[in-house]
Amino acid sequence: MNQKIPRFEDIIEAHKHIGTYIHKTPVLTSKSINTLLNSKLFFKCENFQKAGAFKFRGACNAVFSLSDEQAKNGVATHSSGNHAAALALAAKLRGIPSFIVMPENSPEIKKKAVKGYRAKITYCKPTLEARESELEKIVKNTGATFIHPYDNFHVISGQGTAAKEFIEDYPYLDIVIAPVGGGGLISGTSTWIKSCNSKTKVIGAEPEKADDAYRSFKSGILQPSLNPDTIADGLLTSLSEMTFTIIREKVDDIITVREETIVNAMRMVWERMKIIIEPSSAVALGAVMENPEIFANKQVGVILSGGNVDLTKLPF
Amino acid sequence: MNQKIPRFEDIIEAHKHIGTYIHKTPVLTSKSINTLLNSKLFFKCENFQKAGAFKFRGACNAVFSLSDEQAKNGVATHSSGNHAAALALAAKLRGIPSFIVMPENSPEIKKKAVKGYRAKITYCKPTLEARESELEKIVKNTGATFIHPYDNFHVISGQGTAAKEFIEDYPYLDIVIAPVGGGGLISGTSTWIKSCNSKTKVIGAEPEKADDAYRSFKSGILQPSLNPDTIADGLLTSLSEMTFTIIREKVDDIITVREETIVNAMRMVWERMKIIIEPSSAVALGAVMENPEIFANKQVGVILSGGNVDLTKLPF
Repeated sequence: MNQKIPRFEDIIEAHKHIGTYIHKTPVLTSKSINTLLNSKLFFKCENFQKAGAFKFRGACNAVFSLSDEQAKNGVATHSSGNHAAALALAAKLRGIPSFIVMPENSPEIKKKAVKGYRAKITYCKPTLEARESELEKIVKNTGATFIHPYDNFHVISGQGTAAKEFIEDYPYLDIVIAPVGGGGLISGTSTWIKSCNSKTKVIGAEPEKADDAYRSFKSGILQPSLNPDTIADGLLTSLSEMTFTIIREKVDDIITVREETIVNAMRMVWERMKIIIEPSSAVALGAVMENPEIFANKQVGVILSGGNVDLTKLPF
Repeated sequence: MNQKIPRFEDIIEAHKHIGTYIHKTPVLTSKSINTLLNSKLFFKCENFQKAGAFKFRGACNAVFSLSDEQAKNGVATHSSGNHAAALALAAKLRGIPSFIVMPENSPEIKKKAVKGYRAKITYCKPTLEARESELEKIVKNTGATFIHPYDNFHVISGQGTAAKEFIEDYPYLDIVIAPVGGGGLISGTSTWIKSCNSKTKVIGAEPEKADDAYRSFKSGILQPSLNPDTIADGLLTSLSEMTFTIIREKVDDIITVREETIVNAMRMVWERMKIIIEPSSAVALGAVMENPEIFANKQVGVILSGGNVDLTKLPF
């Protein structure tokens, strides 16, 4: 690992950098969900973040941390998801080009979002190999800086700003729970929370059918995501060496959640709170639903990570 | 008409009555929708109101305006929709019984909501006649007070509190637009707004396929809803003599909206704002979308009336 690990101060620095670009998202509560789950839940609504997900925090910090010299050639990434849109928007705000490699089978709504932010899109075959080789070509030809969706110091520092806002508003949470894909969000979250108050537990929630972080955490050895197959399409990726290092040190536990519970959790939020969250966001609430012995009578901060859903492909 | 018409002061009184029970709902904005529609829209989010719709304001005011003597026998209504749930919840909060007559073919989600608030439900055939005769029996047998969903002084006064909050936060709106079903919301809204600032226009939005208010408004003669057939299931009812009287005096215009636009407006709010609104709510935004010449470059207050949607029957 040749990158340094973000610290408390880096998240403060990130918040200064991006404060004027991001939304300070609201924290919502639901009396009926609290009653149903016998818990006191506080939802940090990153589904209301710009570009529809927390990813904008990290992408924005990465883009605005570049020197003018670096920035002028633009930024590049490969992603079919929220990081692509987030990076494209951040680049647009800085007035620099963005180059996005997307699998040709990406959902229309995601293509539309990325196009809307004026990114230059290159479509490729839907394999990691194709994505990486396309990206390499683009970086070589354009001089753009590759911004990894989570294995990146500035991205993780940016993601930590959601927890910073959360704890500033609600300092006395017993537990904070967030979904785990590549680990950028939980890394930033745990870095902030463990620096503020070591008594607040940090728990990662992962789909049972994409449980690489769980397996890595329990075995102590970084393990790849193997044929992940979950509705939570933001959580398919594997941890990186950097996010795994942070998670081992700062996260208290990782819990896996059944597919059925993910859908039920998503539906509960849609029906009771009247807000739209994507399946990946619902994994954190799903963990609360499946483990009452951990969360009962606790003050629990739940990070709702995003709200980008293809409305023509709902699981209801 | 044997009921008096609500005035400005009655809405103030209503707000005092119900202030501790209702949510003061937030006003949200969307930069991307403003850009798309070349307008400055402010959305009053009654989809976040208790029981999921503005209806709780009126029902709550009606329930808490009863004397103890009247209240002890409970309240009754016939409704397949939001008024039923709202009345049941208001009655529960006052600790009195509620009796709801619902058509047997009402959506499961609405039955569940009403049951959840401990109402006594009587199912009937899905005709107005069956509903009214069942209700009459219940009122006779129990002594419960019938609370009409809109042809009721206290209900209209309660609905006006949404506009009161709206104008307190945003006094300089050029136009306020709200959906029209039976006319309770637009009556309360126009009563408040025309008392505050006669320069703010009040416009009602109605589905083209349930256009009784439009026909009544344009002809000056109260006309019934004839075979209404719209996805906006909260707007099927006809105006009453009282709501028509208020609308004629205080509403500046009524605009009809095509079904396709209602669905597009609903989708726009779901996708861009990440909040759930029901089709009836989307009619007001649909009117803005179809009439740029009226709304362009104006500050427009849009009342999003509710968020109760059957997720298994979405139009996308």
